[in-house]
Amino acid sequence: MNTADLGLPVDVPSTALFTDQYELTMLRAALKAGTAERHSVFEVFTRRLPDGRRYGVVAGTGRVLDAVENFRFDADVLRFLRERGIVDEETLDWLAEYRFSGDIWGYPEGEVYFPGSPIMRVEGTFGECVLLETVILSILNHDSAIAAAASRMASAAGGRPLIEMGARRTHELAAVAAARSAYVGGFATTSDLAAGFRYNIPTVGTSAHAFTLLHDNERDAFRAQVDALGRDTTLLVDTYDVTEAVRTAVEVAGPELGAVRIDSGDLLLVAHRVRQQLDELGATETKIVVTSDLDEYAIASLAAAPVDAYGVGTQLVTGSGHPTASMVYKLVARAESAGAAGTAGTGGEGAPLVAVAKKSSGGKTSIGGRKWAARRLDSHGYAEAEVVGTGPVPDELADRQLLVELVKGGEVVAREPLDAARDRHAAARANLPLSATQLSRGEPVIPTEYVHEGSGS
Amino acid sequence: MNTADLGLPVDVPSTALFTDQYELTMLRAALKAGTAERHSVFEVFTRRLPDGRRYGVVAGTGRVLDAVENFRFDADVLRFLRERGIVDEETLDWLAEYRFSGDIWGYPEGEVYFPGSPIMRVEGTFGECVLLETVILSILNHDSAIAAAASRMASAAGGRPLIEMGARRTHELAAVAAARSAYVGGFATTSDLAAGFRYNIPTVGTSAHAFTLLHDNERDAFRAQVDALGRDTTLLVDTYDVTEAVRTAVEVAGPELGAVRIDSGDLLLVAHRVRQQLDELGATETKIVVTSDLDEYAIASLAAAPVDAYGVGTQLVTGSGHPTASMVYKLVARAESAGAAGTAGTGGEGAPLVAVAKKSSGGKTSIGGRKWAARRLDSHGYAEAEVVGTGPVPDELADRQLLVELVKGGEVVAREPLDAARDRHAAARANLPLSATQLSRGEPVIPTEYVHEGSGS
Repeated sequence: MNTADLGLPVDVPSTALFTDQYELTMLRAALKAGTAERHSVFEVFTRRLPDGRRYGVVAGTGRVLDAVENFRFDADVLRFLRERGIVDEETLDWLAEYRFSGDIWGYPEGEVYFPGSPIMRVEGTFGECVLLETVILSILNHDSAIAAAASRMASAAGGRPLIEMGARRTHELAAVAAARSAYVGGFATTSDLAAGFRYNIPTVGTSAHAFTLLHDNERDAFRAQVDALGRDTTLLVDTYDVTEAVRTAVEVAGPELGAVRIDSGDLLLVAHRVRQQLDELGATETKIVVTSDLDEYAIASLAAAPVDAYGVGTQLVTGSGHPTASMVYKLVARAESAGAAGTAGTGGEGAPLVAVAKKSSGGKTSIGGRKWAARRLDSHGYAEAEVVGTGPVPDELADRQLLVELVKGGEVVAREPLDAARDRHAAARANLPLSATQLSRGEPVIPTEYVHEGSGS
Repeated sequence: MNTADLGLPVDVPSTALFTDQYELTMLRAALKAGTAERHSVFEVFTRRLPDGRRYGVVAGTGRVLDAVENFRFDADVLRFLRERGIVDEETLDWLAEYRFSGDIWGYPEGEVYFPGSPIMRVEGTFGECVLLETVILSILNHDSAIAAAASRMASAAGGRPLIEMGARRTHELAAVAAARSAYVGGFATTSDLAAGFRYNIPTVGTSAHAFTLLHDNERDAFRAQVDALGRDTTLLVDTYDVTEAVRTAVEVAGPELGAVRIDSGDLLLVAHRVRQQLDELGATETKIVVTSDLDEYAIASLAAAPVDAYGVGTQLVTGSGHPTASMVYKLVARAESAGAAGTAGTGGEGAPLVAVAKKSSGGKTSIGGRKWAARRLDSHGYAEAEVVGTGPVPDELADRQLLVELVKGGEVVAREPLDAARDRHAAARANLPLSATQLSRGEPVIPTEYVHEGSGS
């Protein structure tokens, strides 16, 4: 098996090239300057949530762990880098031996986050950590954006199941990750077979308008589908006239018909009419599935409609207006210079760390220093604040810490089934103040408080 | 080499699973009903451009050809489909032999399009064509959305080069396709190494704030970078104080310094100041690169600023507000029923075709029938109308036809280098009325006219 078979980046043999060139040129320059081995702490965080959103959802953590594990430079890649003159021979030798050997801590997948939450912390030498920036951000920014949209849609849907069906609206592999993120955010199923295959997510799907149009008439099409897929299939009833189609559907499948799908028109109105018609025809157990450019607002507007499931495509895979999270990966601390008075002299692990940050400019604020995070609860047990700090963790927050160990000395230590992330998200969202799931635009539902080393707690 | 190394859909051995489940269940039902072999014509088109946009850009065609070529069902995939009970044994046998054997025509990559343009036409048996819907739409919808944004940015930039640097803001493989689409749309380079490796796009990149923060001071960082990458490197000058950084940069690299990069602040103001300072320092040839959440409007606003290149990330890879094109894949014609009076009886190739279309509802209009398309020119040689029709092509449009043969009897016949698509796009855009490249919101720059069979021309 070969990646060429994917019709996709042929001969990209690892995740190492999902990388901006400047990561490698920085490494090259740091190796030459003798600073590449300085112990460094990078953190992933976002300065703000997408406009109007009340919480974010961490997704993609599991994929990051895979990407870090598979981040290595083989002969083809090294040849490419040499031919392009991107790095020199010393750097090529260093890359040939590359395996991440540091530590990664982070919010577990499915957890919610807020501005400033240290979603992931990567610690090791500058060289080994800086290289991971692009691929870690790609994964977290994409997957978290989708999961946040999914979570809002799941809230809006109440207990009704959501079907992810956006594969055709996004890159074919982004679609697979989107289905995974949607599942974390609360979707029940996906239409994407690759997502079913890769992540074992339940898949669904029955037929499109083309199937009805292929046949000489709607009755033939319905009969063909019922013959092949059984009476509990879902028949698409809006190719021609919905009322006639529903009548035909029940005639063909009987009142045991599984469901009908409505993909156009005023869904609220049509759903009511179809429900009434189905009931009159004795098909009281036949479900109604609606699809057609749904987003969380459209879903919410159907709360009182007799709808049994929602299929969501475009708006899910494009993050419902926010197709990317704005997470960044910043150096927040590094070993003091080897030459600085009183330091160990190597700048390696164990050397005293100095907090670093870009000067605030144009809204790009960063806070230096290795951070912890904890979610403080109110007297009712609901989240009250996201507390982010440097230095010692206050005693009262010690058991509310959010970061968990993901990679230890280069080894992944926190693999988990996708359902664990999905369950965690449901629990985390339920633990937020009720206004978290209001769809209207608002501020983050809890504030982020900073506790700086030396500022007390 | 193994797809597992990508940290991505492991063991998805082909493009066949980038498919919505209903494509397979429709096939299953059609096989059972004896209708799967009916000769069918599917077309890809969009009912409208994204709100306010004046033209669309076809991108991804080359990737579609790869995907069709690699669309096959191997043992692992068949086992998955059997275990899930998605199809029956008859269908599995059919899938095991699957190779697309039909014809595909389409707008060549880089061409512009308008509402109703038949961007791609897939013709063969219903079974072989219906399966390709999802993957074709995934590729075209994603890649065309990015190319359209890129094209607007390239117009806004005038002759100044654009650098694609959005990898960290989108799925890691969507990023590779985005870099490819950006190149088609007019970008000069990318920071994405995988895109350089896979598509031979020129790559660039030097350093980030982390590199400056790693060192004890900015001067050390600049010296390290210049030592390793040479005087013609690009130094990032906004980690602390820009004026001081520019002075240090020229002191370290000399007036031969290649460029400085500004990544925050009021770019218009800062660029003017930095240019003046560089000139005063004798660094008159040192270029200025700006990056920082640029979109086509920000680029346009810098037209009079002393800027030499733009780096664009988020807004490029998210389609600048429109992350997906809304292309659909619709059955527009099929063989008459085998039983219909006077037909050949097989419904296969050569049988008379009947135009089909879903009833218009909720704005989902489709026009049945196999279509041609041509771009009519005005007396100055500029595009005047997109003419789409069924039936014979009017003589005066015969040499202005837009669809070209891409796949013939299952064989790809239209591979081309990516530069051909890039050049084609530049030519096609230059051939539009001047208002095409206005950034303000507007209607499609030329109307789409329909010529129906029998309606004359």
